[in-house]
Amino acid sequence: MNKLLIVGTVAFDAIETPFGKTNKILGGSAPYIGLSAAQFDIQSAIVSVVGGDFPIEYIKSLQEYNIDTSSIDVIVDEKTFFWEGRYLKNMNQRETITTDLNVLTKFKPNVPESFKDSDVVVLGNLSPKYQKAVISQITNKDALIILDTMNFWMDNNLDELLSVLSDVNVITINEEEARQLTGEYSLIKAAKKIFTMGPENVIIKKGEHGALLFSKGNMFFAPALPLESVFDPTGAGDTFAGGFAGYITQSKDFSFKNIKRAIIYGSAIASFSVEEFGPKRLFKLDKHQLENRLKVFKKLTEFEI
Amino acid sequence: MNKLLIVGTVAFDAIETPFGKTNKILGGSAPYIGLSAAQFDIQSAIVSVVGGDFPIEYIKSLQEYNIDTSSIDVIVDEKTFFWEGRYLKNMNQRETITTDLNVLTKFKPNVPESFKDSDVVVLGNLSPKYQKAVISQITNKDALIILDTMNFWMDNNLDELLSVLSDVNVITINEEEARQLTGEYSLIKAAKKIFTMGPENVIIKKGEHGALLFSKGNMFFAPALPLESVFDPTGAGDTFAGGFAGYITQSKDFSFKNIKRAIIYGSAIASFSVEEFGPKRLFKLDKHQLENRLKVFKKLTEFEI
Repeated sequence: MNKLLIVGTVAFDAIETPFGKTNKILGGSAPYIGLSAAQFDIQSAIVSVVGGDFPIEYIKSLQEYNIDTSSIDVIVDEKTFFWEGRYLKNMNQRETITTDLNVLTKFKPNVPESFKDSDVVVLGNLSPKYQKAVISQITNKDALIILDTMNFWMDNNLDELLSVLSDVNVITINEEEARQLTGEYSLIKAAKKIFTMGPENVIIKKGEHGALLFSKGNMFFAPALPLESVFDPTGAGDTFAGGFAGYITQSKDFSFKNIKRAIIYGSAIASFSVEEFGPKRLFKLDKHQLENRLKVFKKLTEFEI
Repeated sequence: MNKLLIVGTVAFDAIETPFGKTNKILGGSAPYIGLSAAQFDIQSAIVSVVGGDFPIEYIKSLQEYNIDTSSIDVIVDEKTFFWEGRYLKNMNQRETITTDLNVLTKFKPNVPESFKDSDVVVLGNLSPKYQKAVISQITNKDALIILDTMNFWMDNNLDELLSVLSDVNVITINEEEARQLTGEYSLIKAAKKIFTMGPENVIIKKGEHGALLFSKGNMFFAPALPLESVFDPTGAGDTFAGGFAGYITQSKDFSFKNIKRAIIYGSAIASFSVEEFGPKRLFKLDKHQLENRLKVFKKLTEFEI
């Protein structure tokens, strides 16, 4: 089986939406990426760090999805990274109430020996310093490197981010971030500038408006599934990235045609993720449900001229 | 040839964008709708009103596209409707500087005798009172009625708008307007409510994010073509509606499959319209260019699972 390495946060999230409120539940980018990628026949591992307060059941729940958790370090006298946020009525805006980095400041990413030759690496949204540290441990020079990032790192660690980007094959980024990174309003122009920074594939995530893929000379507009109700959007972008990476790892085909397919898989899994609080829905997702939703995506965009 | 009747404003527009500024040029919803629909083999007529200051060349330029202008009334001692607006840097927001209704307050829509049996009617964005007056003159009970509207009429003439809607088959509306009209944030729920008001097809225009079509039991997500530069978005929604209506009129096939096709045609023509100031680009558009762009739309959304 092909190998996928994931680096990202493993965290406690407390989420409030117009539909309800959770106490601290399993969160962070890595669990969403891992659970989403677990829909495919691959081997995966998470590189991350948690504190002594992190429940062993959460780790076990990931292991049950065949995710290697041996490189999730536990620093017993520290607390786990904690994020608390609230979604406003339209679910498109959210406000952060608390961000306690805690143990994250002590993170020293260690790639497991057996994953240094990974076929695909996902660098979840995290300090570019840690993303770089992971890349430097990868021995497979043909590995496909996928990076997710956000405006925070552009504001505060731009040079480090640009340095990581030069090694990246696929970047996933939202519209505003693409504009911020490049100073270009047109997404076509923004993608062209990002090509010069390293990535040869630029995926622009537009939430409920779908996603755009730019590869040199090619464009693809992926739909988002209109939903009757979005219960909790937390982790949708990570779920998208995880589904994308999982499909690409399983197929090990980096052609434009296959990257488009991977985007549809990522979008389809993300459309489940938002149906319940946190990653709850991902724990219940099966292949049959996913196949059915892929058919809905196909039907949603099909037309004949 | 099948017949399309268009009611809408014929106006002077003065437009400022980050790329330049125009004096008063041909504007209003009806010219965009008419010129876009003129890409198809149909007969069309515009019902509207202008003042004595309206240049005869503008009327002639429409006639050259085989548009019957006999029902564009001229009230010589009044001034033509005038709109002046400015687009902000990102081209997604605009501010209205001037709206002089002028002759529009004296409008008495008269459908030409030879168009009372029209196959398709487009009610461009206008007071629902005028839209209603046009419907009441249509003798073809099987005519497909397409309505475009905006938040202004929801704020000020909701009862009249609801009364028109009960006779409408297709509504084109933007996201925020769909939400305002129904009080539902989810576009699926909004579309369901709009079904109960009359229209059996709801087209939600999302600008650079494409369009969504809801028909009872069916959904379609149409892409927008990402553009390197948008020169002037004025009239893009009307151009979309005109292309949609023109294609539907020519084919006279009101099936879901064909409505999807009509949306792609409308989107493709709108993608040209924004390339130059006002309706300028539409005057130069030919079938060959349109066919090529349709192929781009097809390629943009194609994937295999």
